[in-house]
Amino acid sequence: MPRTRPAPSHQHVHDWLTAHADSTGYRVKEVPLDQLEGWHTDPDTGNLVHHTGRFYSVEGLEVAVEDDATRDLALSRHHGEPGDRRWEQPIIVQPEIGILGILVKRFDGVPHMLMQAKMEPGNINTLQLSPTVQATRSNYTRVHQGNAVPYLEYFTRAGRGRPLADALQSEQASWFLGKRNRNVVIETDDDLPVLDGFRWCSPEELRGLLHLDNVVNMDSRTVLAACLPPSGAGLAPDEDSFAGALTRSAAAPSRLTGLTSRFTGIKARRNLTRRRIPLARAAGWQRGHDRIDRADGRYFSVLGVDVHAGDREVAHWSQPLLKPAGRGVIALVARRFDGVVQLLMRARTDAGTFDIAELAPTVQCLPGNHGSPPPFLDLVLSASPERIRFDAVHSEEGGRFYHAENRYLIVEADDVPPEAPEGFLWATLRDLQELVLHSHYLNVEARCLLTCLLALR
Amino acid sequence: MPRTRPAPSHQHVHDWLTAHADSTGYRVKEVPLDQLEGWHTDPDTGNLVHHTGRFYSVEGLEVAVEDDATRDLALSRHHGEPGDRRWEQPIIVQPEIGILGILVKRFDGVPHMLMQAKMEPGNINTLQLSPTVQATRSNYTRVHQGNAVPYLEYFTRAGRGRPLADALQSEQASWFLGKRNRNVVIETDDDLPVLDGFRWCSPEELRGLLHLDNVVNMDSRTVLAACLPPSGAGLAPDEDSFAGALTRSAAAPSRLTGLTSRFTGIKARRNLTRRRIPLARAAGWQRGHDRIDRADGRYFSVLGVDVHAGDREVAHWSQPLLKPAGRGVIALVARRFDGVVQLLMRARTDAGTFDIAELAPTVQCLPGNHGSPPPFLDLVLSASPERIRFDAVHSEEGGRFYHAENRYLIVEADDVPPEAPEGFLWATLRDLQELVLHSHYLNVEARCLLTCLLALR
Repeated sequence: MPRTRPAPSHQHVHDWLTAHADSTGYRVKEVPLDQLEGWHTDPDTGNLVHHTGRFYSVEGLEVAVEDDATRDLALSRHHGEPGDRRWEQPIIVQPEIGILGILVKRFDGVPHMLMQAKMEPGNINTLQLSPTVQATRSNYTRVHQGNAVPYLEYFTRAGRGRPLADALQSEQASWFLGKRNRNVVIETDDDLPVLDGFRWCSPEELRGLLHLDNVVNMDSRTVLAACLPPSGAGLAPDEDSFAGALTRSAAAPSRLTGLTSRFTGIKARRNLTRRRIPLARAAGWQRGHDRIDRADGRYFSVLGVDVHAGDREVAHWSQPLLKPAGRGVIALVARRFDGVVQLLMRARTDAGTFDIAELAPTVQCLPGNHGSPPPFLDLVLSASPERIRFDAVHSEEGGRFYHAENRYLIVEADDVPPEAPEGFLWATLRDLQELVLHSHYLNVEARCLLTCLLALR
Repeated sequence: MPRTRPAPSHQHVHDWLTAHADSTGYRVKEVPLDQLEGWHTDPDTGNLVHHTGRFYSVEGLEVAVEDDATRDLALSRHHGEPGDRRWEQPIIVQPEIGILGILVKRFDGVPHMLMQAKMEPGNINTLQLSPTVQATRSNYTRVHQGNAVPYLEYFTRAGRGRPLADALQSEQASWFLGKRNRNVVIETDDDLPVLDGFRWCSPEELRGLLHLDNVVNMDSRTVLAACLPPSGAGLAPDEDSFAGALTRSAAAPSRLTGLTSRFTGIKARRNLTRRRIPLARAAGWQRGHDRIDRADGRYFSVLGVDVHAGDREVAHWSQPLLKPAGRGVIALVARRFDGVVQLLMRARTDAGTFDIAELAPTVQCLPGNHGSPPPFLDLVLSASPERIRFDAVHSEEGGRFYHAENRYLIVEADDVPPEAPEGFLWATLRDLQELVLHSHYLNVEARCLLTCLLALR
């Protein structure tokens, strides 16, 4: 059980992760939904539920979004997105709040994060780097009757360390109905043992790993948004690099109330109405014996898997997973104003958004799935290489999503108009770092991109 | 139309308000619910709804609150409040988000607030001091077909001033299902006309008025929480008064993450489950031809009123109002630690709480209505006069509540234990001032008490 800081190279961490993957007998097999052990389809509603009524369910949702601003401006025709939208879809309902927690400890003054090699059935490469604790409420209150969750007490008992961040944060609102997890960072001085499968990682190692495809999982990325120090923090104030101009906003006067005011104004004039409906009645969706999907193959499908795992709390289980219809694009457009980088955020409302709207990346979509392309998609996909500040493929939560990949892009574009279009807002890195300490400002895709911003060197 | 600052005396403002009240022909008459014009009782559900389906409705709600912490500690027996609670009740459903906005302008460097003399049918004294704009969405989008709302454009159009605060904030969660209004403060330099019924008020005048019973309405109090400067701000740092010790926290290092972490921990282990049910099925409640109430007379009743008003957007209308079963107590216990005042907040979950729990005053109850008294009620009601820092009766929103009064108390008690009981948290004035800029931290009763704190001299 090493208690010292590992050599500062992300390659070492990656080798350790790969070695760990080879040593486990983790197997995932697709099975028809009708044969999913422990799960059944309610004969009245068509909803997919666990026999205990716990964990999560797949149900139907009817959604209507009205927006005075886009209706008035008839922006719908410009942007290919109607001001008023109305649709039905399957959605994952998981009211329980889990814990995504990272334990931080300083070695030689540098904060290190205790990360975990963790398998999830939906992961493309099985094993990814996870937070210290990644546990649903069912996990940690032992509904599974599995093993105890290591290091849990740092996050559930007060006084076991200093909280650096702690808020309920939303997850993929296209696929989850109002789902949140507690995102929590605790700093400790304890000389605690490092268990097998865990490792202290430096900020520099994590930055390196974040540039690799499908290594740092979503649960890590969302929590790192609140604790990874920006690499440009030590740069000279006149540093002309993108990272320098990015972190320069820390010295600029706070404009946060201006930003939150525009955001609150958008929320106040947007109406999100929704009603849970029987899944069997969701228009456009069909239920086969093996999966739930659409005749046109768009958006996503729901399938089932059998999982055999060596070192999880439970050694064998079955579950449904949501599989997106393709690889998505999650992109941030950046532009410098007076030497300070501004990031173009979009106030976005999805089927499952907890509170009307959250600040999302400039672009967040499955290209080709939604009729005409959303604003700025062409700009980010056609950006010349010297404009691209970040480009890596990352996975979304492998415990609920099957091979759900997104291309995360940060593009500097000095030719976008300084006036943000209706529903968009310019924000600085500092703004995002302040907002991520509170609930329901940044959606999970924006938090993941914030972590990518902090990984820039 | 005076454009200059009025003489700095709250008595002048009070005289102006009283004179304005005498000049209007405002009449409110109780009428049976069955004869309420424009409203009807749905024959299937018993819900009380407007014929347009807009404005608001009175429906039934089934509520269950589970809390791991209180269950484990069996605090229920100590405090007379079971750890797990389950009940049914009528509740007001009003999904639309209105605007409560105050316009601020500096005269000789001192920020003044543009306040309004406004009548509401539920007010005991008819007319109270309101924010610059107090409008439901139906008001300001002209569903009533009434007059335009003065000064509205400062709050709905960007660039008409500098936002000082702007967030969606909850209202009485015992009576409203997840209701929020936009609380917004805009500072302007415009030389704008002061219309009849409006007046610029100084912080000193507002502080004086807040010590009077039933003068400053709830809508003003909740917005003032985000913009009234503390009177102690100009005091010497060694000032030994309560106000001095209160504002000293502004100089102390921020402990906000410690506080939000404890609050997030409480929310993560508390479960709020609720379901809208037909009002006719709400157990314990009965519907007569004239009102909705309980056989035991507890909690509240719902009655109807006819209103004739001279200068409102609409000159005559009828509406249901909720009438509490008595005068409530809303109290804050304060204690000094190392010369800094700490305030004892309670993480409170009511039927209509938007997001599981909000920080509430130490005590918030209708004495005698809830079996054994809640914690600290006896302490605040039996406090000797020299311990009482604030004591005034204020009304809750007269547009929805009928003669709903609460006694607002701030009590300094150096004999309360420094360890906050389960579900309670110590916070400084600075903490509350930071939290009030964001949604869903402070409930409306806590925000009103925060304004009372800022009124201390």
